[in-house]
Amino acid sequence: MAHITVPPGVPGIRSLFAVRPEAAVPLSALADLLLHGPNSLSPGDRELIAAYVSALNDCTFCQTSHAAIAACHLDDDETLVASVVRDPEAAPIAGKLKALLALAACVQQSGRAVRDDHVARARAEGATDLEIHDTVLIAAAFCMFNRYVDGLAAWTPTDAAGYRERARLVAAHGYSPGPAGGTAST
Amino acid sequence: MAHITVPPGVPGIRSLFAVRPEAAVPLSALADLLLHGPNSLSPGDRELIAAYVSALNDCTFCQTSHAAIAACHLDDDETLVASVVRDPEAAPIAGKLKALLALAACVQQSGRAVRDDHVARARAEGATDLEIHDTVLIAAAFCMFNRYVDGLAAWTPTDAAGYRERARLVAAHGYSPGPAGGTAST
Repeated sequence: MAHITVPPGVPGIRSLFAVRPEAAVPLSALADLLLHGPNSLSPGDRELIAAYVSALNDCTFCQTSHAAIAACHLDDDETLVASVVRDPEAAPIAGKLKALLALAACVQQSGRAVRDDHVARARAEGATDLEIHDTVLIAAAFCMFNRYVDGLAAWTPTDAAGYRERARLVAAHGYSPGPAGGTAST
Repeated sequence: MAHITVPPGVPGIRSLFAVRPEAAVPLSALADLLLHGPNSLSPGDRELIAAYVSALNDCTFCQTSHAAIAACHLDDDETLVASVVRDPEAAPIAGKLKALLALAACVQQSGRAVRDDHVARARAEGATDLEIHDTVLIAAAFCMFNRYVDGLAAWTPTDAAGYRERARLVAAHGYSPGPAGGTAST
């Protein structure tokens, strides 16, 4: 049960957005910019960073949501997504994405955990300043979203089909707040 | 030196906002809503939560910035602010604020660290659902802002006068992004 009164039957962050719709606006805009907006990093790669950081923070709702959205962007390859979240270095992905995921893992620990050599590795793999910036900000933002959802004990459904259904909507339409306090899953 | 190219001489998060002005918009709006907008928690109390979480995350830029802004809202009582950031339970503040700071400290560790009794303590001290919500979200947001600033190694000035000058502007006008990529300190 959530730590505060939320509308019944609304999953995760959306139940909190219903309680504080003013906060839903900048939070949804941030998620949309970082994960869905135009970017030299693909939406699939950005969703993998979000799912991976959420797994490191042990946030089941965000990890499951963003793994499902990542899969939508990656030919429904849930096996690939699971392998990245479990162990990025061993997963069949490009060296640049491995370096960015390693950078994200540092940020998840602490901003101060990021050292020059983490950034140098990403740069050596071809990452631009903006890609490094966005990776750090995505990882930092999920240290917020994860704490927001679990810190208020928002409801975390266990039915995978519900996450897949929502993921298709988000992958197609992004994270803009919808009418009547409804928002895409973050 | 910052991990990416930023404009020289621009402190902390504002140097990152100059690199990614699209991100500055939702991030500034979030800070303004949580710290400066209308709320049953005073701006001083909310800035104390921000400064305290930033101290727990060892983020010198954010801690110094928000301690200075808190002091602006609290009759320039920098001694009080320092005592809260150092040890909230021993500081001369209300029981409700102590309970909310203890809740924020849990969120700083992990969303999953928040237990029913932390929330029950805040409620017993008179905190409303919305105050509990906003405390959790402020703490979570500073787990993002702190990682963003330190994860990119943004410049952290050491001159206290500069923080005080900026704090007066922010305390008076809030966190809305300014013209030409300039923004209030977050």
